[in-house]
Amino acid sequence: MVVVMQEGATEDSVQNVINKLMDMGFDIHRSTGARHTVLGAVGAKVDFDIRDIELLEGVEEVLRITAPYKLASRHFRPEGTLVALDRGVTIGGEEVVVMAGPCSVESPGQIDSVAASVAASGARVLRGGAFKPRSSPYSFQGMGQPGLELMRRAAEKHNLCVVSEVMDHVQIPMMLDYVDMLQVGARNMQNYNLLRELGKVTKPVLLKRGISATIEELLLSAEYIMAGGNYNVVLCERGIRTFDTYLRNTLDIAAIPVIKKLSHLPIVVDPSHGTGRRDKVASMARASVAAGADGLLIEVHNDPEKALSDGAQSLFPEQFEQLMKELRMIAPAVGRRI
Amino acid sequence: MVVVMQEGATEDSVQNVINKLMDMGFDIHRSTGARHTVLGAVGAKVDFDIRDIELLEGVEEVLRITAPYKLASRHFRPEGTLVALDRGVTIGGEEVVVMAGPCSVESPGQIDSVAASVAASGARVLRGGAFKPRSSPYSFQGMGQPGLELMRRAAEKHNLCVVSEVMDHVQIPMMLDYVDMLQVGARNMQNYNLLRELGKVTKPVLLKRGISATIEELLLSAEYIMAGGNYNVVLCERGIRTFDTYLRNTLDIAAIPVIKKLSHLPIVVDPSHGTGRRDKVASMARASVAAGADGLLIEVHNDPEKALSDGAQSLFPEQFEQLMKELRMIAPAVGRRI
Amino acid sequence: MVVVMQEGATEDSVQNVINKLMDMGFDIHRSTGARHTVLGAVGAKVDFDIRDIELLEGVEEVLRITAPYKLASRHFRPEGTLVALDRGVTIGGEEVVVMAGPCSVESPGQIDSVAASVAASGARVLRGGAFKPRSSPYSFQGMGQPGLELMRRAAEKHNLCVVSEVMDHVQIPMMLDYVDMLQVGARNMQNYNLLRELGKVTKPVLLKRGISATIEELLLSAEYIMAGGNYNVVLCERGIRTFDTYLRNTLDIAAIPVIKKLSHLPIVVDPSHGTGRRDKVASMARASVAAGADGLLIEVHNDPEKALSDGAQSLFPEQFEQLMKELRMIAPAVGRRI
Amino acid sequence: MVVVMQEGATEDSVQNVINKLMDMGFDIHRSTGARHTVLGAVGAKVDFDIRDIELLEGVEEVLRITAPYKLASRHFRPEGTLVALDRGVTIGGEEVVVMAGPCSVESPGQIDSVAASVAASGARVLRGGAFKPRSSPYSFQGMGQPGLELMRRAAEKHNLCVVSEVMDHVQIPMMLDYVDMLQVGARNMQNYNLLRELGKVTKPVLLKRGISATIEELLLSAEYIMAGGNYNVVLCERGIRTFDTYLRNTLDIAAIPVIKKLSHLPIVVDPSHGTGRRDKVASMARASVAAGADGLLIEVHNDPEKALSDGAQSLFPEQFEQLMKELRMIAPAVGRRI
Repeated sequence: MVVVMQEGATEDSVQNVINKLMDMGFDIHRSTGARHTVLGAVGAKVDFDIRDIELLEGVEEVLRITAPYKLASRHFRPEGTLVALDRGVTIGGEEVVVMAGPCSVESPGQIDSVAASVAASGARVLRGGAFKPRSSPYSFQGMGQPGLELMRRAAEKHNLCVVSEVMDHVQIPMMLDYVDMLQVGARNMQNYNLLRELGKVTKPVLLKRGISATIEELLLSAEYIMAGGNYNVVLCERGIRTFDTYLRNTLDIAAIPVIKKLSHLPIVVDPSHGTGRRDKVASMARASVAAGADGLLIEVHNDPEKALSDGAQSLFPEQFEQLMKELRMIAPAVGRRI
Repeated sequence: MVVVMQEGATEDSVQNVINKLMDMGFDIHRSTGARHTVLGAVGAKVDFDIRDIELLEGVEEVLRITAPYKLASRHFRPEGTLVALDRGVTIGGEEVVVMAGPCSVESPGQIDSVAASVAASGARVLRGGAFKPRSSPYSFQGMGQPGLELMRRAAEKHNLCVVSEVMDHVQIPMMLDYVDMLQVGARNMQNYNLLRELGKVTKPVLLKRGISATIEELLLSAEYIMAGGNYNVVLCERGIRTFDTYLRNTLDIAAIPVIKKLSHLPIVVDPSHGTGRRDKVASMARASVAAGADGLLIEVHNDPEKALSDGAQSLFPEQFEQLMKELRMIAPAVGRRI
Repeated sequence: MVVVMQEGATEDSVQNVINKLMDMGFDIHRSTGARHTVLGAVGAKVDFDIRDIELLEGVEEVLRITAPYKLASRHFRPEGTLVALDRGVTIGGEEVVVMAGPCSVESPGQIDSVAASVAASGARVLRGGAFKPRSSPYSFQGMGQPGLELMRRAAEKHNLCVVSEVMDHVQIPMMLDYVDMLQVGARNMQNYNLLRELGKVTKPVLLKRGISATIEELLLSAEYIMAGGNYNVVLCERGIRTFDTYLRNTLDIAAIPVIKKLSHLPIVVDPSHGTGRRDKVASMARASVAAGADGLLIEVHNDPEKALSDGAQSLFPEQFEQLMKELRMIAPAVGRRI
Repeated sequence: MVVVMQEGATEDSVQNVINKLMDMGFDIHRSTGARHTVLGAVGAKVDFDIRDIELLEGVEEVLRITAPYKLASRHFRPEGTLVALDRGVTIGGEEVVVMAGPCSVESPGQIDSVAASVAASGARVLRGGAFKPRSSPYSFQGMGQPGLELMRRAAEKHNLCVVSEVMDHVQIPMMLDYVDMLQVGARNMQNYNLLRELGKVTKPVLLKRGISATIEELLLSAEYIMAGGNYNVVLCERGIRTFDTYLRNTLDIAAIPVIKKLSHLPIVVDPSHGTGRRDKVASMARASVAAGADGLLIEVHNDPEKALSDGAQSLFPEQFEQLMKELRMIAPAVGRRI
């Protein structure tokens, strides 16, 4: 932390700040300039509230030097992290991994049909929800465990891995039997009890960015999981909330290169939730690959107009097939393949 | 729902939309104008996704007429709701109820000292956290159940009610022994498993608005609780996230009259989290009362500079005492008392 | 500026940053800590782009110490600025100055009727637009100079000062004959050619905050005017754009105490544009006074339902009369009068 | 416009709304449903304020059917608009047009050097500022007319067209001698006097989206220019302001397909202002082309670290050369060429 004192701050104010910093466990390095006294505070601690210093008498401004996360930081693993699922699928390497499937698992026929078509088009992971966080208490809330069973069966038949959302820490042990990766939804990005429990499992976690979370907050949530010992975290950009409401969310494509710089964790994009409309998904999927994403999470449904949830943002299988062709043309421009 | 067809939409498109609406359970009322065909869709259902219609061929625009919530709507109880706690405290009536206390319970001495001073200044409810949702895994996470015991004891000694945050549904049964009102934090506003369980208890719930939640989303979260049978919900504005980052959040004072119009539930304001800085709390507390808030939630600490969390936004007891005097001058201008 | 070098930054990197800073005209104060080298850069310059340093090799973070404005800063006039209009009206003193009138001047009868009623209720300044910035080219664009003449006449008859919006620098000389204060609209807050010309006149300027302007940007725009020699600037909060679109804008009431701390300039609030709806104006006006505003800008119309612009946010004269009574009750709580 | 009356609205309320709509010049089409009366209001008018109806007694909700713009709408020219500059450059066709150059023209050597290198890499238009809107009055404000002369000379030597920003309507006649396209900056997107004057010239206009402008507002500003008779408008996305401040702006890549659907005007992207940092420009340029942009506006400087403005976001010539190679690989995936 660097503390800049106001011009003309009294020696008493300076000493008071120094004492407070020492109480907080920092070593102090003082330098007295022509106009400002600057205090450098060094220590191993990453958790402190800079407002506690900002409000002290005589303080002009305070800068935190170190990020509030350690394990999620690029410095921790400069070479980047590869997250391995089953069936030879690795996220964060040369291959851009496409995960596709319906918003919700609805029936054996539906999930098998979707799994067959996305596998044929080149997807490597089957996505689908069995527990659905819905903003209305009157909406379809998912099939639960039976949905997971259906998804697992369809995935194995078509040689796909499985990712599905966990809504509550009590669901974790049961879900481990069915999924290759546990997804944390945007609304649960700061459900710390859930994150803490996910730190204790060994399966990878797909952590979605909250709709109003900064990138630093996303990395802090990853840190919660990693602090428990589970380093297999994949981050996911899925749109943020802005003043512009023409689409459901504003997909923050620039988050891809920003996260690549700040963290070693892979970053994938969900253009389906990121736009909320089927006719905008393909362009945003292409943009994501062109910007360097490590993977995509795309909603595909065999009959979107009859889907029980989010049909409006699900692709028809033919649209997905066409999109995969376009993505295969783009990937080499960024040194990747699909 | 009202569906406006495009100029020149074919009869086939119109029929297709009508069929889809009928499948969704609506009665259709069609009117064919000079330029646009307009379809009125009427039904008892409150849960549907208007995007499913927006994407159909020939559709120009879709308007949902009815709010997606029922029980939380002003129509449901035009006269407004009074939420009664213990000790004669009622939120939503003539009295503006002030809830005050430390961010976290830290020790017997601390909580007793704060309880004594806020009670003397006129607070009716003691606030304080035993379970703390912290963005960093390395921060103080609260005292847990022993903190609740300390808070209960201090509250009884000084004739105060107790409100404290519940972070996880598994904590509910235990907490009911200690608190008069269960608080749902901003990060948990859309933790639907938690909301659903709170619908099954009889004690009141203080539901904080998420930092990027619309007012409609806040009311939908209240609906989750009410749909379970618990109608004693108090809403809380605590600042939203905007482009302006000078303060932690932008306190949306206008949410007070907006919520008063849309819902029958009481609305209180938390100016401590809403600003994040002690020196801005008093002005925002005054503004909230002037705008018609039913109550306030204010952080007060006997020694803010040594607080284990959020000391920067906690008032000194003398500041709280002075603020209460100002609030007593303002309340009569809006027909209230403190 | 304080520059924090990365851990392990090479001596070459440090020297390169020092050289760059010296090229920019700064004196450098270097301190070498255990982990980080910190460079303090001191100079009289207020204009530089910290990104030029951020991108240099080995730089961890950069903090600008000094605000990018000087004349608008509270340090420049710690005692605060009083802006005097005609007729004994002073903004920034003990009196909360209420400015009221129609969105647009429409006719002699209209402006006289409104002026009479707002004067009777206690307003001191007549507001009204003759040049209207409208987002649609097909909307009523204002009466122009004849409107100013009508407003001047009505104001003099009822002993009011006049404030009206200037849209273009070529209008300034003409307008000086009619108004006591020139208003810069939110859309023109960064119209630098206009600001520069306003720095050359002696009449006060009412500068509205842009809907997505930070407070620092607002103060920089004030600096443009002041740098030309005109120190009589009154700032105006009128709502910012956020994700919440229930109301037109989110009125940032906390900007009042923030601006009071950062600047010596008076700050007034426009709750009419800040909410966009007549039924929310009174509560936000009361909140503004309770939070310490130096004045209010309120739209009042003798027949709002027939207004040529913004009728939806204009008060009826009786509503304004009632509001003024409430404001008179609140002002003493903050040591002010109306 | 469609007006939905509340359940139980009295016949008097309905008649009152009908009368108001007829006063506004609409033909009314009434349909009385089981629960709601719905009024369809049809007319040629595009300019009205729906709040005037929303506030009437008995009104539940109001929906504007028609967009508030006509000429900028896709319906007006379903086939799309081609904007032709000089030298065979056409924006909106199969070629993705790259415009590149320094933020500011600084000297003959600088502009010639940059023009030579960007032309060699495949740019078709030279960009550069002679009049600079700067948020600080103390910043470099541009070379003015001499800068335009230098840019024109460099462009002709290297067979490039010229685009440069006009800050004030009084500059238009002079600038027409030097530029092939007049640029309106983000801060001037709603400077209506400027837009109106640009409607009277025949040269194309590049209209940048304001940092907090909705897409509808951008199209309304285009409508201002087109309403004057100048249909050669090119729109430009350059980043919006959101809660996320890690980068200067959030580039709204999804605006590309949205604008393609709503309007016939070409849409280009400025990833330099859209990110504010050199190291993020290439990924966002690639994403823009992959999402279907008609062109790019990129800052390139022969010596970015010495640039008088925005050096931090300017590419080195070698970086630009490399980027052009990548873009040429991506364009075919969307049926385009560079």
